[in-house]
Amino acid sequence: MTTTVPPRYEIAHLAHAELLTPDLEGSLWFFTELLGMRITARHEDSIYLRCYEDPYHHSLKLTAADHAGLGLLGWRTTSADALERRAAALDAEGLGNGWTTGDIGVGRTFAFRSPDGHAMELVWDVEKYSAPTELRSPILTRRSKRPLQGMPPRRLDHVNLMASDVTAQKEVFERTLGFGTRERVIDAANGDTEIGVWLSVNNLGHEMAVMLDQTGSRGRLHHLAFWYGVPQHNTDAAELCREYGIQIEAGPDVHGITQGAFLYVFEPGGNRIELFGNSGILQFEPDHEMVTWDISDFDTGLAIGGATLPAETYFVYGTPANAGQEKLLAPSVLR
Amino acid sequence: MTTTVPPRYEIAHLAHAELLTPDLEGSLWFFTELLGMRITARHEDSIYLRCYEDPYHHSLKLTAADHAGLGLLGWRTTSADALERRAAALDAEGLGNGWTTGDIGVGRTFAFRSPDGHAMELVWDVEKYSAPTELRSPILTRRSKRPLQGMPPRRLDHVNLMASDVTAQKEVFERTLGFGTRERVIDAANGDTEIGVWLSVNNLGHEMAVMLDQTGSRGRLHHLAFWYGVPQHNTDAAELCREYGIQIEAGPDVHGITQGAFLYVFEPGGNRIELFGNSGILQFEPDHEMVTWDISDFDTGLAIGGATLPAETYFVYGTPANAGQEKLLAPSVLR
Amino acid sequence: MTTTVPPRYEIAHLAHAELLTPDLEGSLWFFTELLGMRITARHEDSIYLRCYEDPYHHSLKLTAADHAGLGLLGWRTTSADALERRAAALDAEGLGNGWTTGDIGVGRTFAFRSPDGHAMELVWDVEKYSAPTELRSPILTRRSKRPLQGMPPRRLDHVNLMASDVTAQKEVFERTLGFGTRERVIDAANGDTEIGVWLSVNNLGHEMAVMLDQTGSRGRLHHLAFWYGVPQHNTDAAELCREYGIQIEAGPDVHGITQGAFLYVFEPGGNRIELFGNSGILQFEPDHEMVTWDISDFDTGLAIGGATLPAETYFVYGTPANAGQEKLLAPSVLR
Amino acid sequence: MTTTVPPRYEIAHLAHAELLTPDLEGSLWFFTELLGMRITARHEDSIYLRCYEDPYHHSLKLTAADHAGLGLLGWRTTSADALERRAAALDAEGLGNGWTTGDIGVGRTFAFRSPDGHAMELVWDVEKYSAPTELRSPILTRRSKRPLQGMPPRRLDHVNLMASDVTAQKEVFERTLGFGTRERVIDAANGDTEIGVWLSVNNLGHEMAVMLDQTGSRGRLHHLAFWYGVPQHNTDAAELCREYGIQIEAGPDVHGITQGAFLYVFEPGGNRIELFGNSGILQFEPDHEMVTWDISDFDTGLAIGGATLPAETYFVYGTPANAGQEKLLAPSVLR
Repeated sequence: MTTTVPPRYEIAHLAHAELLTPDLEGSLWFFTELLGMRITARHEDSIYLRCYEDPYHHSLKLTAADHAGLGLLGWRTTSADALERRAAALDAEGLGNGWTTGDIGVGRTFAFRSPDGHAMELVWDVEKYSAPTELRSPILTRRSKRPLQGMPPRRLDHVNLMASDVTAQKEVFERTLGFGTRERVIDAANGDTEIGVWLSVNNLGHEMAVMLDQTGSRGRLHHLAFWYGVPQHNTDAAELCREYGIQIEAGPDVHGITQGAFLYVFEPGGNRIELFGNSGILQFEPDHEMVTWDISDFDTGLAIGGATLPAETYFVYGTPANAGQEKLLAPSVLR
Repeated sequence: MTTTVPPRYEIAHLAHAELLTPDLEGSLWFFTELLGMRITARHEDSIYLRCYEDPYHHSLKLTAADHAGLGLLGWRTTSADALERRAAALDAEGLGNGWTTGDIGVGRTFAFRSPDGHAMELVWDVEKYSAPTELRSPILTRRSKRPLQGMPPRRLDHVNLMASDVTAQKEVFERTLGFGTRERVIDAANGDTEIGVWLSVNNLGHEMAVMLDQTGSRGRLHHLAFWYGVPQHNTDAAELCREYGIQIEAGPDVHGITQGAFLYVFEPGGNRIELFGNSGILQFEPDHEMVTWDISDFDTGLAIGGATLPAETYFVYGTPANAGQEKLLAPSVLR
Repeated sequence: MTTTVPPRYEIAHLAHAELLTPDLEGSLWFFTELLGMRITARHEDSIYLRCYEDPYHHSLKLTAADHAGLGLLGWRTTSADALERRAAALDAEGLGNGWTTGDIGVGRTFAFRSPDGHAMELVWDVEKYSAPTELRSPILTRRSKRPLQGMPPRRLDHVNLMASDVTAQKEVFERTLGFGTRERVIDAANGDTEIGVWLSVNNLGHEMAVMLDQTGSRGRLHHLAFWYGVPQHNTDAAELCREYGIQIEAGPDVHGITQGAFLYVFEPGGNRIELFGNSGILQFEPDHEMVTWDISDFDTGLAIGGATLPAETYFVYGTPANAGQEKLLAPSVLR
Repeated sequence: MTTTVPPRYEIAHLAHAELLTPDLEGSLWFFTELLGMRITARHEDSIYLRCYEDPYHHSLKLTAADHAGLGLLGWRTTSADALERRAAALDAEGLGNGWTTGDIGVGRTFAFRSPDGHAMELVWDVEKYSAPTELRSPILTRRSKRPLQGMPPRRLDHVNLMASDVTAQKEVFERTLGFGTRERVIDAANGDTEIGVWLSVNNLGHEMAVMLDQTGSRGRLHHLAFWYGVPQHNTDAAELCREYGIQIEAGPDVHGITQGAFLYVFEPGGNRIELFGNSGILQFEPDHEMVTWDISDFDTGLAIGGATLPAETYFVYGTPANAGQEKLLAPSVLR
């Protein structure tokens, strides 16, 4: 197959993610009772969930495990052909793990891993979600009614990965999957080492971020983010977290990086979840220039308002937690 | 030149628009004092303006004329090659008007017209905006500081055109420029005639809408929209419009169509301007299915809340105004 | 008992209201599922409900009846003595109906009626609400946790009554209970007849409004209002009403009168309910001057944004509905 | 004069405040350009300012001085008689400083001091503000049009004082002026010492707070607060402060105490200013019970979201700054 479609047009978006949790019941409470996500399937130790505007069968799969962490990330391609081409590109980099038969709501996928070891897959065939009559919304672009439960986000938004080598991660995603790097943080005093990068395949300011794991661990998750699109909803969610015992790490505030309205909390399984109260900066320029922040002049990048990102957790805690990191979270969270 | 880049990847976004105004001073007051847009150039009877996050030299050109209306719409392509290919496609349809030498901040363009006669152009070479020191923002993805003046929108968002034949307009834009039709309204009782279509070349729910001109006129503008991305800002803008004598037509409320948070006002020159308080539904599915609304069951499409769109203006008033339509606007607006 | 306490310091606030409903199940669904109010008691044909920041046992009593309407309004005095003094004042006006033994959560009350016949009572002894452990909020001024159900208002805010004679109603409330008239609408072309008045006994812009019943009926309810205090919550509530089949009459928008952020809906029993997204203008001046609007120049009074209040319902529909008014509401609402 | 009017009905509200500033030009820029307050008078080294909904001639007087701090606080009584009675009560406590002839827009006042030495006055005669034609708002309860400049607060809201002895301060204000203590923070491990108290004379959750000055200084100002009433406006103000070099201390977030939506910034003169994005908890119960927080379990009291109040400034910095405290603020602020 010969084609000149540039790689940057081959990945459509982040379609689904699997979170591992040592407290399946607690995690389920958080995602269904407080965030109002709906269950679409259960299978063995896994529960499949969706936000009310997610397009497919599910965006989140919760799987019981002995530790928290990212199970799998699924990226949807822009066509069946794109899937073949991107799979070949990953194989050429030695990152491919071969074809799978998929999952509930997910057809044939191509499995691969990031250089740091994060498990991912590419997929074209997915089950579009079709709501039963009682959940059908009169707002026709809305795949199902806004739930009356909790403070429900509208869709899965992005993922933030910790990695032992940010640049290696970034370059592979640029080269094989066509991600563009929109913003990055460097340590100018230390040879311009890249500390963090924000990548996207579409108009979002980022669909994937990679931040340096200062503990030297590999393949960990920093956070998974769900989208509200309404700044006030982050304030509402923070209030509910406070009242119902969900630990808040930081926010609501707005990052200078990506202009994203953030609220970071720890779900009961220990994974950090971001609630995203706006769409951040949308990038329409086809020839946008990457923005570079220097870690020595970084305050606005972290927060436009007065929020502080706690050094003892934000820059070192990921899942799976390293030995000893459990105590960074309040007891009620890890139970 | 042989390539297989699908047309849907060839147009990046709406880059600039020209509005004609019979009240240049009044229009300028509205855009600079109430909306806080900044002037970047003046030339003859035109004034060039930008929102604080617009990427280029200007997004709006105000030109003195004997009537209101749309002067020109500029679409930026995703590459220099894309410009050539799309120009050829327009020429093949007989819609091309040839190459131009551009404008202030705008390089060589390919001029064309919509089937209904709206003047447009394609451009690749544009002048990226670089703020002078005193306007540089510490938020690095922001092209200039948020103004302290008025209630400033962040960027040009979309355009809504009136047309004598919606389907003809839609099909040309799909075929030649790769627009996708995301939503449409049909009159099922009348042979499924298309009454309105919402088109996009990127993740936005629409960058261009086309609505049937029930007066039978051709080539008119329904509205030009500027983006806040914060729902409260539409409420703030409405309050300022009320206090400073800018006529409000409808809103703030949220359309079911596109899920866009709207506020419609008439700028002093008589053009309808929409202020857009969120990003509406963002569309990431590469194989999204077009949504069809029937005009007989359309209430939610028009507004999710209780707003009504005035039949005496919303569905018939456009610019240039037809004979007699001036009286639809309050005297203070057209002066 | 001799005292010089001015009457304006003798009524504290609106403490509770009873709504009659011909569709108890439907009304209960609306108040508990969509508005997230919690049930505190059931007795015979009545259900007692509270918002999460209401201070007392209940703020709303729903009672099954053959028609919608206001059952009873309860005003709390500022002291036990004030209750005696205000009861005497009402008796002196011939409006007293004598002492009662109260209700669940409500001690001895003095029953009276407005000149138009609205049933009311004064009370000092009320049961303060004390949440059970699992509902106790870490926010100590909050009487119970914010519910995870629906879009919950925080407290009962105010009442709006329709009356056959606005001025008579106003004067009695000023004279006997110390209400101050903050704003009014007059018909200057018609002898300055008062069309509407907004009264308060505290810093709120109004706790009671009285509007002319243009149908000539007596003693009807225009609406009962519950408070969010967050403008976005009105938008959220409108969206839920739209998706779950609750008829929206008007809003969200902001009245010029009282600067109140309104959303009017009809609960399934047929009573109009206002959701109140801010606190409106707060009045701190002890010698504030009453503001007078003329009905001939009234647009801003009705709405600061572009909302219209439907003439076919807003100015004529009240509960109990007059003969024939049932058809003003959508079938699904009155079922 | 014999009367039984309880003291709690004798003070209406906080009417005006004077701030001292060593950088009059910088402070003026902040209040007029960023907060959009309007100048109503200038006299010698003072400039008089008002928010657009403040009822009187001015709510803020900026006076050039060699250090920052609170110049004077003006409380308005509920009547001319109340002024006499409260003056007598203050004299009886030995806190009176005698009658003054007032100021621009302020008639005869009774000067007094708090036990800690904060300069205050009581006033009845004030000049009501009447806007010139071009500033008159069509929203009739609004004393002047919302400015098109900056992010304008609507009125002066409250003051927060630091004191060497919180309890002494509280008791005098309760006894002489009828303030009610709504909330307090105690140090249970240290003999229940009161660390902070929140007092009010009306339905606001507080009009005056007093917090322990941990440096042992006397008579300092913690902050003066201006009210938006819209949560989003705090986010907007934070963004403008960030972009225009105004130092943010903390927020936007919401205190558990008072449920106030806060943003703390330092105006260029060095005074801490709070912008208040909602009305907090409104208190209507005439017999409300004081709420007590223990400093050992205080997190929710400080912030419902994830904000932290910086220990190095929030609990020790006040104005006038103690020796050495200037360095707590960024250089650009104190210049």
